[in-house]
Amino acid sequence: MISYWNNYPTIQNKLQAVCSYLEENVAINNEIISKTLVDFARSGGKLLRPALCLLFAELNPNHDEEKMTKIAASLEMLHMATLIHDDIIDDSPLRRGAITVQAQFGKDIAVYAGDVLFTKFFETLISVMNGSEYLAYNARTMRRILMGELNQMTIRFNIDEKFTDYLRSINGKTAELFYLACKEGAYFSGCSPQVVRLASRIGRNIGLAFQIYDDILDYTADKATLKKPILEDLGQGIYTLPLILVKDQYPEIFVPYLNKKNQITLAEIEEVAKLVVQYGGVEQAKVIAQKITKKALEDIKKLPDGIAKDNIHQLTMDLLNRQY
Amino acid sequence: MISYWNNYPTIQNKLQAVCSYLEENVAINNEIISKTLVDFARSGGKLLRPALCLLFAELNPNHDEEKMTKIAASLEMLHMATLIHDDIIDDSPLRRGAITVQAQFGKDIAVYAGDVLFTKFFETLISVMNGSEYLAYNARTMRRILMGELNQMTIRFNIDEKFTDYLRSINGKTAELFYLACKEGAYFSGCSPQVVRLASRIGRNIGLAFQIYDDILDYTADKATLKKPILEDLGQGIYTLPLILVKDQYPEIFVPYLNKKNQITLAEIEEVAKLVVQYGGVEQAKVIAQKITKKALEDIKKLPDGIAKDNIHQLTMDLLNRQY
Repeated sequence: MISYWNNYPTIQNKLQAVCSYLEENVAINNEIISKTLVDFARSGGKLLRPALCLLFAELNPNHDEEKMTKIAASLEMLHMATLIHDDIIDDSPLRRGAITVQAQFGKDIAVYAGDVLFTKFFETLISVMNGSEYLAYNARTMRRILMGELNQMTIRFNIDEKFTDYLRSINGKTAELFYLACKEGAYFSGCSPQVVRLASRIGRNIGLAFQIYDDILDYTADKATLKKPILEDLGQGIYTLPLILVKDQYPEIFVPYLNKKNQITLAEIEEVAKLVVQYGGVEQAKVIAQKITKKALEDIKKLPDGIAKDNIHQLTMDLLNRQY
Repeated sequence: MISYWNNYPTIQNKLQAVCSYLEENVAINNEIISKTLVDFARSGGKLLRPALCLLFAELNPNHDEEKMTKIAASLEMLHMATLIHDDIIDDSPLRRGAITVQAQFGKDIAVYAGDVLFTKFFETLISVMNGSEYLAYNARTMRRILMGELNQMTIRFNIDEKFTDYLRSINGKTAELFYLACKEGAYFSGCSPQVVRLASRIGRNIGLAFQIYDDILDYTADKATLKKPILEDLGQGIYTLPLILVKDQYPEIFVPYLNKKNQITLAEIEEVAKLVVQYGGVEQAKVIAQKITKKALEDIKKLPDGIAKDNIHQLTMDLLNRQY
């Protein structure tokens, strides 16, 4: 999915180095796990977290490129590890348009594959930032991602789920790693503390908006584009923003469906999806995502002028308009 | 299981502090996972790894007790995390005489419970040894434990499994953490590099002997004493030392059973167990464990004289004679 970065040639080049580092480091002395991890690394996420880290690092071009490659790769390792373990919990059949690790090789391999990635994540961090306070920030981010996922698991099938519950979940499971990616990019390239603070805030807001759009796409994209099963979340009792917004406005329409909990049929899920669009859930969610993106754009304006700033601005706009 | 340490009163006291640290730190803002982890921490492993760490730390009494408590606890966190994830792979119903996390709450909770422990493990390490080369040693140990488990998984139902394959597995899955426990105890209490080297070697050998005895107990202990299902390994194609030794000496006796792979019945497993004892597998395995223990005892003799040395000697002898 490096092609996603065609309009950002320097980032595209640097992501190649990140991919090489990933492939070299997930290869271990166990054929199945090694193949599983290399395939997964190659199967093409957008590498958004490493890319954001590298984009912010370009704010100070006078930085150690090899160090930044490793830090960018560590972010993707943590992301991959949590994805693989999440797919066990969700029983997901598809991820990145390919069959998931747990669906292909079973939960056993998926547990160890995730654990190997956690180990490589820490080994990579220790190799580049031993002694830095950023080690603790990384451990904290890992914990917060996990708490976000646990929070999401706990409130499954909760008809009373509020906007704030949803925000708490996506803040942990998604925005936290975007926050760290941008913060690390700025910090380890040697930006000023003020720029590091801006980067952190921009990262969190991009992450929140990104996840809301992701959840919107679940209601609007077609299967072929999205490369993952549509509305899987709904059947598993994970209610995302478009539904949360309309279910409280029109309980008489939505509560009867939601009361079926995991007995809801595929046909009913499709009906709910249509109703969510019809009653304005997607439009309202877009307005919220746009507000959050606007905050990010305002902070981006305060960054030091240059190509890096322009690219960060452009990427943030791109994420608003993505189809997948 | 603090009562296991009745004959080591100073260690018993210090293990209380380790337990308190564990309980405080595994309590997270998620009721199910938190309860699961606190119960598991309380369900009473022998805390052998923290105890070894603390025993070696007593070689230099002039040390930071709070720091040692955290390091000792970190070892148990890593141990608990790997146990919980291993029980997912093994589909184990029992652990420490209690129902396993995965059997009680499902694999989903078990995946996250293990992940939370990995996180707490790293957070604890970072809080006491950020900047130390021991961070990398810890990550390496985590990787080697995982590789030991993976190795064991890969060679399941392999009738040709050799003594060296077995050694490689137990060296990773068990001896590696014993090695780290003793090494860290000596190092962080401020012992000389020579003592740290001895401690490392003693730890590895105690770990190897411990695992061989564990595998012997699988053939000799009764269910009530051992507190875990007897001969579970055999039914899952994990062949341990007593069987490995006799199956190559008497292939005509054992290979027909092993060829049944996972179609072997419980009655047949019990027959194999009896035959392993009858053909001397347990006795031969004991001889090997005794040889390894002897190496450890020779190294223990070289430690600085004092109560700590005597206790380390005594514990090593105790582990030889344990019934569970």
